[in-house]
Amino acid sequence: MNAPDKFTSLLSLTREPFPASHKCLIPGSRPDLNVPVRDVLLTNGETVSLYDTSGPYTDAKVEIDVRRGLPGVRGAWITERNDTESYEGRSHQALDEGLKHAHDHDAQRLAELRAGASALQRTPRRAKAGANVTQMHYARRGIVTPEMEYVALRENGKREWMAEYLANEERAKRVAGNPMGASIPRIITPEFVRDEVARGRAIIPANINHPEVEPMAIGRNFKVKINANIGNSAVTSSIEEEVEKLVWAIRWGADNVMDLSTGKNIHTTRDWIVRNSPVPIGTVPIYQALEKVGGVAEDLTWEIFRDTLIEQAEQGIDYFTIHAGVRLPFIHLTADRMTGIVSRGGSIMAKWCIAHHKESFLYERFEDICDIMKAYDVSFSLGDGLRPGSGADANDEAQFAELRTLGELTQIAWKHDVQTMIEGPGHVPMHMIQANMDEQLKHCHEAPFYTLGPLTIDIAPGYDHISSAIGAAMIGWAGTAMLCYVTPKEHLGLPDRDDVKQGIIAYKIAAHAADVAKGHPGARSRDDALSKARFEFRWQDQFNLGLDPDTAREFHDETLPKDSSKVAHFCSMCGPKFCSMKITQEVREYAAKKGVAEAEAMAEGMAQKSREFMAGGGEIYIPIQPAS
Amino acid sequence: MNAPDKFTSLLSLTREPFPASHKCLIPGSRPDLNVPVRDVLLTNGETVSLYDTSGPYTDAKVEIDVRRGLPGVRGAWITERNDTESYEGRSHQALDEGLKHAHDHDAQRLAELRAGASALQRTPRRAKAGANVTQMHYARRGIVTPEMEYVALRENGKREWMAEYLANEERAKRVAGNPMGASIPRIITPEFVRDEVARGRAIIPANINHPEVEPMAIGRNFKVKINANIGNSAVTSSIEEEVEKLVWAIRWGADNVMDLSTGKNIHTTRDWIVRNSPVPIGTVPIYQALEKVGGVAEDLTWEIFRDTLIEQAEQGIDYFTIHAGVRLPFIHLTADRMTGIVSRGGSIMAKWCIAHHKESFLYERFEDICDIMKAYDVSFSLGDGLRPGSGADANDEAQFAELRTLGELTQIAWKHDVQTMIEGPGHVPMHMIQANMDEQLKHCHEAPFYTLGPLTIDIAPGYDHISSAIGAAMIGWAGTAMLCYVTPKEHLGLPDRDDVKQGIIAYKIAAHAADVAKGHPGARSRDDALSKARFEFRWQDQFNLGLDPDTAREFHDETLPKDSSKVAHFCSMCGPKFCSMKITQEVREYAAKKGVAEAEAMAEGMAQKSREFMAGGGEIYIPIQPAS
Repeated sequence: MNAPDKFTSLLSLTREPFPASHKCLIPGSRPDLNVPVRDVLLTNGETVSLYDTSGPYTDAKVEIDVRRGLPGVRGAWITERNDTESYEGRSHQALDEGLKHAHDHDAQRLAELRAGASALQRTPRRAKAGANVTQMHYARRGIVTPEMEYVALRENGKREWMAEYLANEERAKRVAGNPMGASIPRIITPEFVRDEVARGRAIIPANINHPEVEPMAIGRNFKVKINANIGNSAVTSSIEEEVEKLVWAIRWGADNVMDLSTGKNIHTTRDWIVRNSPVPIGTVPIYQALEKVGGVAEDLTWEIFRDTLIEQAEQGIDYFTIHAGVRLPFIHLTADRMTGIVSRGGSIMAKWCIAHHKESFLYERFEDICDIMKAYDVSFSLGDGLRPGSGADANDEAQFAELRTLGELTQIAWKHDVQTMIEGPGHVPMHMIQANMDEQLKHCHEAPFYTLGPLTIDIAPGYDHISSAIGAAMIGWAGTAMLCYVTPKEHLGLPDRDDVKQGIIAYKIAAHAADVAKGHPGARSRDDALSKARFEFRWQDQFNLGLDPDTAREFHDETLPKDSSKVAHFCSMCGPKFCSMKITQEVREYAAKKGVAEAEAMAEGMAQKSREFMAGGGEIYIPIQPAS
Repeated sequence: MNAPDKFTSLLSLTREPFPASHKCLIPGSRPDLNVPVRDVLLTNGETVSLYDTSGPYTDAKVEIDVRRGLPGVRGAWITERNDTESYEGRSHQALDEGLKHAHDHDAQRLAELRAGASALQRTPRRAKAGANVTQMHYARRGIVTPEMEYVALRENGKREWMAEYLANEERAKRVAGNPMGASIPRIITPEFVRDEVARGRAIIPANINHPEVEPMAIGRNFKVKINANIGNSAVTSSIEEEVEKLVWAIRWGADNVMDLSTGKNIHTTRDWIVRNSPVPIGTVPIYQALEKVGGVAEDLTWEIFRDTLIEQAEQGIDYFTIHAGVRLPFIHLTADRMTGIVSRGGSIMAKWCIAHHKESFLYERFEDICDIMKAYDVSFSLGDGLRPGSGADANDEAQFAELRTLGELTQIAWKHDVQTMIEGPGHVPMHMIQANMDEQLKHCHEAPFYTLGPLTIDIAPGYDHISSAIGAAMIGWAGTAMLCYVTPKEHLGLPDRDDVKQGIIAYKIAAHAADVAKGHPGARSRDDALSKARFEFRWQDQFNLGLDPDTAREFHDETLPKDSSKVAHFCSMCGPKFCSMKITQEVREYAAKKGVAEAEAMAEGMAQKSREFMAGGGEIYIPIQPAS
């Protein structure tokens, strides 16, 4: 049992609370409803309270045993609704682990892993016959679920500490966001959450078999969320690494994680991930289905796919990417593209359609899929299998034909009260981004948009977290509800631990930039708290309020390693003899001393002087045409 | 003489040509006018030709001796104009080296450095009595200078190779940029350059004492340029490091470099930098003037400042940041800011104005400054000393009052035919960026805008190259002509070699994203060439066409280190058994085989089927109001 030990020691690194931070719980209307926030204690005695995705891992008081999984936050809420039942579930099959990769598979090791963590293999629940257990179904019946209340408390956080920053009316008016059509209330109520879910403008991904999830919402009237992808592949990686990547990803702020495993042990990997995840987990079930048919796309069948959906729904996957918009009549539209079909799911389905010369079974069986989704409350993430793989292919007919189809499918899903979001590109130059949002809003009826980037240029391999963070920030501002991260390894290889972090931080920047631009009060206030700390030379507070306190501190210490410099009223850019912020403090004292009245009188005098000066020469405008 | 040897070995690292690349010269109308481009030879036999800022350093045929400086590209052009004269110039003074820092100054070492590279100390030129030697002055008289022709050839590059990518009409129309008011011709002529310079919409920073410069233009109708800052400070750094940083910065694509040194040996450092720089060098002369008065802002005088301008103009500095818009009547406007005055130059002048209760001597002596600028063709970079230091302070009255003043000063500068650009912020949330461009265009009459970022959020210390690349890309698209980079160390410490590179790459991404969005044909085509290489699994070409081939190759090799994988038709993301790009190639063959006619007929049949399907349930729209 070496592997779990290695894992536990890796995990201990990610369990450290953030500096000067502790987990705090906002109590809800019932004893088992408590919403976590991260309180950062500043050196001036103030507290700033931040949205916290990291789950119990950063709570020093909680004992974690990854072989048993996390406690089930939602356990009682689900059973109390009395519309679900336990059942034996589908039995575990060798094929579920991707056994077509038999040549590199170690059955002995798999058996050990499963035996060593048998608590992670749970008895599943499903809707009772005829019941629909989706959050949308409850919402449309006017029921405010504990999940909705949880989301409301979480989106608000502790508004008290923001008061100081929101009080300055002149400033608040000047920097007020441009919500670009979003309607973000000052205070999010549980009823508001219910209404957003009911009308399909937000989803709360929360499979009834994932009681460990801390509920969160994806919708344009909430904070912009980010998704991180993890997953082994045929070439590299291991179960332990993937679970640790999950904990690492949520530490840095991933709101959702997609498990894109394609290699061996994928069923057991998924058990480990879901049971240890406080954030919703998404998958692309066609990947596993393909493994079951040995990687031969044309051998896929509806039955194998359906069985895979049930397998994963029973494990607790919160949303499925389903590429049901890749229809046979659209495939030839990609033939003249610069980069064809680049979505893996899209090309699997394209290959299937071509091989059989038939319409996609995902499209034709869409209502059957809805029936499975609503029995577990799995949300749709309608995949954009025909998304552009280069700027040259952006916004073409293949892409938009699929998007319109996703709009049709959204209405079918909503007929079944199945929660739905829509995936978007990909590679889109800046000037073509807004059209993506406009088309999505128009055809998909405000279902949440969930985009990959988009990358704004194609020439930055090794830096596509940056080329895409630009597009992500812009489309987030425009109304996209969740941004799927891109790591520096995009197009080149598999992200390691540091790549995952780099991708997440870039996307936290993009999402926060979007929140600030939209006018989210919590976003603006965190910026202000850090700016104030920066201006007042509270170095520790500046680090601790940042997205990555460790890196900020390390960078600072490279130039000025002495502890004393962290309270000094200067920094390494200007040195001890001169500092612009120090001078500004003198300006402030000057203005206070002189009084604004005098300053304004002086301004008038100077303006007069300026007019004289300009009259003496400044106003003689020389035509700028060349003489000849 | 250990230091120069250390330097030479450092430099050899940055003299390696880029992989598969060689320097190529586009001949102009005279034998001494040859414009460098970097030709990248692809594995399929094609050549892609790129804009090249790296100067002779990446030309294996050129012998470099940093103690003698670069050859003077413009030497004959300047003397042939017969409007300048050599003169003895100002004598070197101990004070020029920042000797007020006497406690940490090593006079012996300085003497050695100067003696070991005495060729770098040149006899200066200036305009003959009554002459005006600015590019703007020539342009307004209808003269197309060699500098203007050089810029035209450089902006075009080799358009031949782009033909393939520009030929696809459907695509060209779909992805055509939105120039946001810019007017970028398909082919840049020397006459177009002249006209842009004449009307002040572009500048060619090219001091007559910097003949080594390879002329380039900054203007919204040319490619978006980037600036990198280097410079020692009172706390760290050395001359050798600064020169090597210059060569390193232009290798990665800096179009301009600002030397912001504030510490010891600043005069000699500047000689080294200018004589070895093929790109324009900018400075903030008030920094050196402050050194001369021992760091006491109130001791600054017009005479000391004027002498510093002449000192630097004689050395060949191409543009001066002058904070002449920081006027006494504006200073109290910053008193209620979250972060006051954060520009170093701005706070120096604010302190001076307060101490003397007098209007800024930079403002009052502005026409005297113009007289100096036009005698050497130093361009103005009118500094934004009151730029916001946080999102909370963005677009406030202090900032815009200064901007309007910079507009007034631009007209005075233009009266003297002095080339002028305008500096801009700083920290601006996304939704407030466009207003900055609008105000600048309105008040500054299309003089080129040169912004620092802007940073879109404040909570990313350690990652502000990313938070600002977002703002830089957006404002570049909106019409900003040059983007001043921000490194990961911003707000935290002094950038080292790797930070400089990270900052530059982030800004090359921003500038290129802006060029693509504006519709620059050269930008779009490079994206397309890389995308095509990516789609065709030409891994080496994908690396070599990227902004940083080394990093792309290294990232790829981490996962698949074998050389064989670089020609393999798969990558590490999907593995050898399945690959979306491989499937796309099958789609393409399928579409070609079936023929588009059949595909379209099939599409119609499918659409009919879809309509039937939808009629059977899809159209029953369930109202989404909750039941209760």
